[in-house]
Amino acid sequence: MELVNINEKLSRFSDHWSPKIVGELNDSYVKVVKLKGEFIWHHHDNEDELFLVIKGQLLMRLRDREVRINPGEFLIVPRGVEHMPVAEEEVHLVLLEPKTTLNTGNVRNERTVEEPARI
Amino acid sequence: MELVNINEKLSRFSDHWSPKIVGELNDSYVKVVKLKGEFIWHHHDNEDELFLVIKGQLLMRLRDREVRINPGEFLIVPRGVEHMPVAEEEVHLVLLEPKTTLNTGNVRNERTVEEPARI
Repeated sequence: MELVNINEKLSRFSDHWSPKIVGELNDSYVKVVKLKGEFIWHHHDNEDELFLVIKGQLLMRLRDREVRINPGEFLIVPRGVEHMPVAEEEVHLVLLEPKTTLNTGNVRNERTVEEPARI
Repeated sequence: MELVNINEKLSRFSDHWSPKIVGELNDSYVKVVKLKGEFIWHHHDNEDELFLVIKGQLLMRLRDREVRINPGEFLIVPRGVEHMPVAEEEVHLVLLEPKTTLNTGNVRNERTVEEPARI
């Protein structure tokens, strides 16, 4: 049983769009990730995904609107809903999602991280 | 899809030891709760439980040691592990746990909350 300090975990890496596993419970992983710039449009067929912002402002584009998520706020994107995360400035994030979740969802390309590192 | 501000949710109530549901994803609820004083020894047979501290310091007593959890830190207590949360001063907390989780785990008494409110 490990006490996890979120900012200490975030201080261990500097790459963007590469989620790291920092905890697991039930069928899910807790991950931290740094974002900068635009990601890709994607959805997850079977997984709901929680985005909790630690630093910066995450712009979540949805097909019908956009949501700005600030530190101390979270958004749950239900399965099947297309979304595109955008970080105009660097964003630090906690993700909570089933272990089966691929970062690029229904898309596989050069931004796909097949096996996130554990830190 | 609701943008959730954790502190805004916490500002809506003042009672202790009564978790409120603020989100759901997959088979789990996200809850917020305020603690003050000692809880009871209990465990959850089938559920791992995540405790993320927002304000104050949570003392988690375990049978073989204790862990102090500060703001920005989380602890995952695996299923089957006996634990007793203690808040020497008021603590504000985010909980993540399966929907089936009872706050008092294997114990049912006057501190059991059968149906947490949604706020």
